[in-house]
Amino acid sequence: MKQPLRVGVAGATGVVGLEMLSVMSERAFPAESVRAMASGRGDVRTVPFGSRDLPVEELTADALLGLDMVLFATGASVSREFVPLAVANGAVAIDNSRAFRMEDGVPLVVPEVNAKAVSRQTGIIANPNCSTIQMVLVLKPLQDVAGIKRVVVSTYQSVSGTGKAAVEELREQSGSALVGEAIISRVYPHPIAFNCIPHIDVIDEDGNTREETKMILETRKILELPELPVTATCVRVPVFHSHALALCVELDSELSPDDARRVLGGFPGVRILDDASDAVYPTQLSSSGTDETWVGRIRRDTSVTNGLWMWVVADNLRKGAALNAVQIAELLLD
Amino acid sequence: MKQPLRVGVAGATGVVGLEMLSVMSERAFPAESVRAMASGRGDVRTVPFGSRDLPVEELTADALLGLDMVLFATGASVSREFVPLAVANGAVAIDNSRAFRMEDGVPLVVPEVNAKAVSRQTGIIANPNCSTIQMVLVLKPLQDVAGIKRVVVSTYQSVSGTGKAAVEELREQSGSALVGEAIISRVYPHPIAFNCIPHIDVIDEDGNTREETKMILETRKILELPELPVTATCVRVPVFHSHALALCVELDSELSPDDARRVLGGFPGVRILDDASDAVYPTQLSSSGTDETWVGRIRRDTSVTNGLWMWVVADNLRKGAALNAVQIAELLLD
Repeated sequence: MKQPLRVGVAGATGVVGLEMLSVMSERAFPAESVRAMASGRGDVRTVPFGSRDLPVEELTADALLGLDMVLFATGASVSREFVPLAVANGAVAIDNSRAFRMEDGVPLVVPEVNAKAVSRQTGIIANPNCSTIQMVLVLKPLQDVAGIKRVVVSTYQSVSGTGKAAVEELREQSGSALVGEAIISRVYPHPIAFNCIPHIDVIDEDGNTREETKMILETRKILELPELPVTATCVRVPVFHSHALALCVELDSELSPDDARRVLGGFPGVRILDDASDAVYPTQLSSSGTDETWVGRIRRDTSVTNGLWMWVVADNLRKGAALNAVQIAELLLD
Repeated sequence: MKQPLRVGVAGATGVVGLEMLSVMSERAFPAESVRAMASGRGDVRTVPFGSRDLPVEELTADALLGLDMVLFATGASVSREFVPLAVANGAVAIDNSRAFRMEDGVPLVVPEVNAKAVSRQTGIIANPNCSTIQMVLVLKPLQDVAGIKRVVVSTYQSVSGTGKAAVEELREQSGSALVGEAIISRVYPHPIAFNCIPHIDVIDEDGNTREETKMILETRKILELPELPVTATCVRVPVFHSHALALCVELDSELSPDDARRVLGGFPGVRILDDASDAVYPTQLSSSGTDETWVGRIRRDTSVTNGLWMWVVADNLRKGAALNAVQIAELLLD
């Protein structure tokens, strides 16, 4: 896209929107102007952008006029309403919601994995699900060298993936539990403090959660492997930031753990942290605030031919959402 | 065994030992006398047993004299020293450590699954690993009706499995984190508050943790399927009590989720809690303090023929340790 660029961030007051502004500022994204918008902005009047504060505008059709690019950190229903308006006004929309991800013609992009999929055909580029992004970053190099036969993944997902209210709920409930006070659940259907909840997003007809379905369908689309056998259980854990995956991959051909470390370590955006006998592996705390997808506990799964286990951790607000969206925006620059 | 029985509990001051005394009292275990012993008892002088307090004796060879049955809630090194002494003195030893589990001739018993394996050949009966117990309770009925081809499991294990100091560490670290104070780790190699640690027990040569190896080998022994393909990733989560499993099972023949619910729900010790669209499934909080192994999120894994996913939760100190040991003791009664 030709510069100078006039950029909007919709959903700027949420955890992902705030992180998008932070990432754009850190990376000195070449915008002539940046405007922050939110639907139902509540009482938030400004949001930080580098050393400045941006006023928060109400997200309306008019507010979307005069923009070249809009990053949407909104939920699916808001995105369904406003993304087409932004596009009709001539902007490119990079949408973090699930609204358009599986639509034909809408690229679903993780820049290190499928930058070539970027096109402006529909004016919309979709940012994948957080857990999917960190998984495909690991699957892609494995697919390239050894082929992937089947993926079984269990997730350990932080509450920031749900949003600000969930972060507050974990904080409040944890404090209450420690002093023996009653636990009040508003965001989740069960207490999340000192508990795990195997239920993220709604339940689909086949019994999978929508989050599990996303991991299956989005992985296939991004890797361009429409029949790839993928299965997932997605679990919310009492952690504030970063998602972890226990990732079990069956490969078409043999790949030793050492070769997997070499292949994964050479892939952009992926970092190996793997000396388990010295307690060296990524954790959610150690990965929070970083841009990389971290991999440890790489070892053979001997229950199958050519099986590999990995422990994959990334900051769900950065690589899992905001950073990936800004990287897509960067791909669109001339 | 002939009654009246003189029973000892070794390791009586630890979390499992205390729970053994509690379970024996609740179930009115028919002991003429119960003695509590501990090696390095610290400053704990008495432990509760029903409405009474038992004095805590130092665990020595002499202390083991005159007992018919000793329940060991000790670690492997203490068990290796004292279990043979108890047996030499004529007692039956029920050992919760990993010391003797894989020894030929030592039964490894989950009463609902393989009560028939109980024998007094060596004088030792081993209590399986906590996560293994709740897993085989689910695998056994599935094996009986449909055959099991392969098991892939990821665990969400509570800190009480590590012991009292770990429970205290989670409590202290959580409090510190909530007020922004420094986190001090003594028990675990990384902070456990608001974090997950993919590392339970030591790392074996093949890169699996000992905990993962236990789940593989003990499952095969208990189910008498020495070649069963099983693979595991074991993760400590910031939860005080109960372990959860994301259990992915490939069966030999077709079994619908409804049939699985029927088969599992009819198996002793297993309870179904499965209406995910109404947020009905077991959690660690809801399962703590119960005797059952709870199963929810039962659905097809369509990445493979005859695949099933389940979410399996049990109290690791009760069915995963103390209750199972007391149930073994009950099997030995005439």
